[in-house]
Amino acid sequence: MPDQDGTGTTSQHPDGVKRAGSPGSRLDRWVDAYAQRTRGMTASEIRALFAVASRPEVVSLAGGMPFLSALPLDVVGEALARLVAERGTVALQYGSGQGDPGLRSKIIDVMAPQQVDAHPDDVVVTTGSQQALDLVTRIFVDPGDVVLAEAPSYVGALGVFRAYQAEVVHVPMDDDGVIPEALEAALAQLAAQGRRVKLLYTVPNHHNPAGVTLSAPRRPRIVEIARRYGVLVLEDDPYGLLGFDGDPLPSLHSHDPESVIYLGSFSKTFAPGFRVGWAVAPHAVREKLVLASEAAILCPSAFSQLAVATYLEDHDWKHQVGVFRELYRERATATLDALADLLPTARWTTPRGGFYVWVTLPDSLDATAMLPRAVTERVAYVPGTAFYADGQGRQSLRLSYCYPTSDRIREGVRRLATVVEAEVELLATFGPESRPRPTGAAHPGMASPGPDLN
Amino acid sequence: MPDQDGTGTTSQHPDGVKRAGSPGSRLDRWVDAYAQRTRGMTASEIRALFAVASRPEVVSLAGGMPFLSALPLDVVGEALARLVAERGTVALQYGSGQGDPGLRSKIIDVMAPQQVDAHPDDVVVTTGSQQALDLVTRIFVDPGDVVLAEAPSYVGALGVFRAYQAEVVHVPMDDDGVIPEALEAALAQLAAQGRRVKLLYTVPNHHNPAGVTLSAPRRPRIVEIARRYGVLVLEDDPYGLLGFDGDPLPSLHSHDPESVIYLGSFSKTFAPGFRVGWAVAPHAVREKLVLASEAAILCPSAFSQLAVATYLEDHDWKHQVGVFRELYRERATATLDALADLLPTARWTTPRGGFYVWVTLPDSLDATAMLPRAVTERVAYVPGTAFYADGQGRQSLRLSYCYPTSDRIREGVRRLATVVEAEVELLATFGPESRPRPTGAAHPGMASPGPDLN
Repeated sequence: MPDQDGTGTTSQHPDGVKRAGSPGSRLDRWVDAYAQRTRGMTASEIRALFAVASRPEVVSLAGGMPFLSALPLDVVGEALARLVAERGTVALQYGSGQGDPGLRSKIIDVMAPQQVDAHPDDVVVTTGSQQALDLVTRIFVDPGDVVLAEAPSYVGALGVFRAYQAEVVHVPMDDDGVIPEALEAALAQLAAQGRRVKLLYTVPNHHNPAGVTLSAPRRPRIVEIARRYGVLVLEDDPYGLLGFDGDPLPSLHSHDPESVIYLGSFSKTFAPGFRVGWAVAPHAVREKLVLASEAAILCPSAFSQLAVATYLEDHDWKHQVGVFRELYRERATATLDALADLLPTARWTTPRGGFYVWVTLPDSLDATAMLPRAVTERVAYVPGTAFYADGQGRQSLRLSYCYPTSDRIREGVRRLATVVEAEVELLATFGPESRPRPTGAAHPGMASPGPDLN
Repeated sequence: MPDQDGTGTTSQHPDGVKRAGSPGSRLDRWVDAYAQRTRGMTASEIRALFAVASRPEVVSLAGGMPFLSALPLDVVGEALARLVAERGTVALQYGSGQGDPGLRSKIIDVMAPQQVDAHPDDVVVTTGSQQALDLVTRIFVDPGDVVLAEAPSYVGALGVFRAYQAEVVHVPMDDDGVIPEALEAALAQLAAQGRRVKLLYTVPNHHNPAGVTLSAPRRPRIVEIARRYGVLVLEDDPYGLLGFDGDPLPSLHSHDPESVIYLGSFSKTFAPGFRVGWAVAPHAVREKLVLASEAAILCPSAFSQLAVATYLEDHDWKHQVGVFRELYRERATATLDALADLLPTARWTTPRGGFYVWVTLPDSLDATAMLPRAVTERVAYVPGTAFYADGQGRQSLRLSYCYPTSDRIREGVRRLATVVEAEVELLATFGPESRPRPTGAAHPGMASPGPDLN
């Protein structure tokens, strides 16, 4: 992985004190001063492993990093040089808290295939869609409020919900996405318990990590159920344009714009390094998002916004999205073929777009416990537990096919199959006690594994 | 002002509905769903005025925007083109949550004049130092906790403290900065009341908005007092390198690195459009800041960070800071001369660096009430009330000399003097009742005036 310090907290200090993972090694004078919300704020136990996994000899099927070598980098570079030379006093200056009006206009076009019908005034530009998740949660969630999320759900969203002391309740999915009957049952049960449910968080297209897409017939039903229970839908759609077959399905937003906040991102369709995402929200909500964003960062980067706007203006960005789509389609196929050939004892989802395959291991296997062995065998994945707030997911794992070449993917799956076979054999011989249990938090999904695993 | 939509929430929708300032004009279906922390989250009443103040015929002495025309824009542009062409797959990719290690190393050099002695591992890169303010408050402040801040204090910091439901208690300053005896008295009183004080927020160098610098003898005393009461010092230093006379004074951090979080920024010494700032924090605090930042934005922009690192590497940035310094010195002199010549009935501070002069009007004048008249006379400033959490500051205002030329500054002060004279005359003739009182929040300083006013 190109990120050389992606683990954030595991670097070695010249004084020889290893800082992460050894909380007792230094006294923290401020230990009694922290806010209550920091109590659940812990580094994930898998974090240190990913420091190892970033070595070149390891096939990483863990990170969700787009394959940027497919971009026309020199063309992008020249456009940025012109931007600074010609409009530098604007591009390098403070800007609007809501975001650049020109970029907001272009974002309307970018959302057209998903049928998100909005005005530029309805858009708030954010520092990646991660910040939009943070701001939405900030303005809606009091400690103890419930947020509904798919089972499994995006690890970065779980981190935000935890940071605001929400309780996450998972709603089951199948190959057609979140199940309406399960959503209704969850809401009815929570209502009976007197719980306050604020948000339904969902990734309807090419789900991270589940690799499934919410079917067209279910979309209006999901929105209708949420509306009936007074729950705002938070529709996170970074992968909507990366479907392998035909046009995207209409967004949840298109079914009821007053009940849905739609989040978009340029991280997967252009480049994550600019950190440009956005939210489309009902008017009153949008005003609060802008005020919250100004408190958080004053304004999003004018340079990043104008860089993206220039790219959208000067470059055939739709063609480029098509290039990415074909690239990821080929790698998805390589992943599925390799799984069928080499790991037939597992089950997996069949993505029709996006970056991810969700793999369920043979019974009794534990993907979290198996990870150290896998890294030793030079293959990395994200264990399923990272995607749950409640400790579920031990039998599952996420494979990302976005970054390695098809050959490397096949080699990675081959190594994974070797580890799984050894694990199955060990279990057959010695039983579950043969396996070391991971230590650490009871709910590892709520711990932060680092930005590589977006 | 180049920011055409800086007001964020005052834009006119094609449907003709003016959105800001007319909360009753649309029903908000989600009005009962917002988190408690949004209650104080309101747009400032002065916000709409600044939309008018951005017209070219108005001399704006309001915004804190650096004068970017002094940058070598074509050189910067070419460096960025090379960066993308040569290292694009890193610069456009996700990065570390803590920030790019190369940039963090260079930041150590940038802080050397202030004698901030730190290791790159101690640095967390943030989306402007505003995000550092947000993250520090997030990890330390529970609702109801007290944050001490100078009287007056930076409007953007007050916005953050409000967003986390802190109570701000102001500590008096004089021409040598915050007064140690006043700090001690405030802490003793709060301790007697059983209040929990978490942070002392201070801008020691070229204070925004007061334009004063904390004297050398007071620095160790302030740190010692805070430490004795167990209060962490949050030292915000965007202007430290922009002193007109000689080297910066040693930072508060240099007096006790374990008791101080130091915040720096490239917004005033290079360019705010990249949104790159940083925090230097004690080890355990730094780890929590990284986790909080990952939840908020995953990672800071790799592109922005490498752009700044490239600039620091390729360009004689110290010389450029010197260019800015001389420019601002000339404008500060123009401001002070104009005040002496044209507004002798007022009092003001004498900045030795930075962007701001704090002006106190003749007795009984109200800078907030006077602002509409000033904007009509084509001059804009920020009323003093914006810089207090408790409604103080009506007799004062902030003038920023960073952006307009010296001639424009003098013209602006001339217009301001006209308004003040008319106001004095009106008061002498009709008494205070002649003046319209502004409506709105009792504590306008806690409302968000928009990112222009950083």
